[in-house]
Amino acid sequence: MTANPASTTAPLDVPSGTPAAVATPGPGDPRLARLGLNQATVKRWSLRETVQGCLRAGIPAVGLWREPVAETGLAAAARLVRDSGLRVSSYCRGGFLTGADRAAAVDDNRRAIDEAAELGAACLVMVVGGLPGGSRDLAGARGRVTEALAELAPHAAERGVRLGLEPLHPMFCADRAVLSTLGQALDVAEALPAETVGVVVDAYHVWWDPQVTEQIRRAGPRIVSFQACDWVLPLPADALLGRGMVGDGHIDVRALRERVDAAGYAGDIEVEIFNADIWAADGDEVAATVARRHVQHVV
Amino acid sequence: MTANPASTTAPLDVPSGTPAAVATPGPGDPRLARLGLNQATVKRWSLRETVQGCLRAGIPAVGLWREPVAETGLAAAARLVRDSGLRVSSYCRGGFLTGADRAAAVDDNRRAIDEAAELGAACLVMVVGGLPGGSRDLAGARGRVTEALAELAPHAAERGVRLGLEPLHPMFCADRAVLSTLGQALDVAEALPAETVGVVVDAYHVWWDPQVTEQIRRAGPRIVSFQACDWVLPLPADALLGRGMVGDGHIDVRALRERVDAAGYAGDIEVEIFNADIWAADGDEVAATVARRHVQHVV
Repeated sequence: MTANPASTTAPLDVPSGTPAAVATPGPGDPRLARLGLNQATVKRWSLRETVQGCLRAGIPAVGLWREPVAETGLAAAARLVRDSGLRVSSYCRGGFLTGADRAAAVDDNRRAIDEAAELGAACLVMVVGGLPGGSRDLAGARGRVTEALAELAPHAAERGVRLGLEPLHPMFCADRAVLSTLGQALDVAEALPAETVGVVVDAYHVWWDPQVTEQIRRAGPRIVSFQACDWVLPLPADALLGRGMVGDGHIDVRALRERVDAAGYAGDIEVEIFNADIWAADGDEVAATVARRHVQHVV
Repeated sequence: MTANPASTTAPLDVPSGTPAAVATPGPGDPRLARLGLNQATVKRWSLRETVQGCLRAGIPAVGLWREPVAETGLAAAARLVRDSGLRVSSYCRGGFLTGADRAAAVDDNRRAIDEAAELGAACLVMVVGGLPGGSRDLAGARGRVTEALAELAPHAAERGVRLGLEPLHPMFCADRAVLSTLGQALDVAEALPAETVGVVVDAYHVWWDPQVTEQIRRAGPRIVSFQACDWVLPLPADALLGRGMVGDGHIDVRALRERVDAAGYAGDIEVEIFNADIWAADGDEVAATVARRHVQHVV
């Protein structure tokens, strides 16, 4: 008879299936004080299940998406989150400002701003949009982003909502975001008031950037959100789903967290992972792994 | 009876299958004077077939790879290319300098330099290497690149070979190249003599970069190679094979070509496309499409 206490007592991390390296922190653990769970990470959970799952896991903030909020109903969603005591670390997402119909895009973004205000979200994440089909005009698309943001900023200011320009990894330049670096996002943001237009620092999108340290420093009070996940290889067939659990890949998330903190950011550290294996896992196990990895690799 | 002369006379571009938009230029056409075909674009062709295919298509330069050169034998390959009258626009590739065994990597790169010299290649393309397995230490990997290049530069100078540091698209940062932007490659190159260490401007890797215009200007005489292909969507399961035929995607190759020319580059414009559909096509049809698209979208 062999005894292997670890195998019977240590929970398994998802999706790696490896034994947890640290004990699972629970509600009230001060190391979780700034942790947020973006609901896209637990995609199969409803908004209510996500809120309840965060409470069970001791995760004090949640990042929300427009589609599930709309399914629940905006007022009901706002009440649900408010009653839970969770912070809304971000609202995803506005943007897509590069198409031909700017009026429609601006209208839709005004509604997103109104929703973010009602939800009390720390920011509205802006994924600015890629190149229209067949277009090679990057400069033109970037110009439309700048113009649309100038139109939106006054409405955001009026509603007390901070817009977070999210530079996306350059592999999404053609189809999702013509803002590809933090420096470039800051160039755009700095034309507008800092209290209204900031930037999102998502580890997945910026980790490779040789200028990331100096641009985080430059961003300072413009940082409205810090998001964590990991870069794992190989990239899957759908590059959108290539994100890994924090600690499973090549990103030094702690080093980035230290830099955003040094730049003055004191907000939530939101885990946002698009990954089919994580979506297939049990939500509570995902939340527990997120909490453990946060302790192990972030704080 | 319907008559559609175009459908019976116009060749089809590969891999799109669309009718050619321009007549196929042939040997001696001055618009092809700077065109090069990287042999990875016609992967099924042997070195001899590639040389003969370039001659038939009127493409005056060829980019070579170490593996097929080794198969042919270095001396035989050098003779074959010299006798053909083709220029060797690049030799692919050196690099992979970030691993633990630097001595082995440096040795291998010295051999690649010697081969490039014997082949009379315009440059040795350096793909510097990614992060070792499990590593999150980007700064360390970048430091090893700088150190190894300092060791290699004197040998390259002695052999009259220019090293071309190739920044790779940031999606390859973890596994292939910790140099991700032209600006960063120049920061490394500028510590070494311009006549020995330059940069490769590959449209696929740099097109998204908001600083690409100013960095091409900065690069000036350090540009040792300009490579063309296109960014097509969606990315395939293997992101390495996601490159498209020039004109099929979102890159304004002509605009980039004009910038490298304005920076003083007068060398070859080499088409390098990793794409399973192009590899499956007839080599002569690939070469003909490359020549037509060059006329249509590059010169």
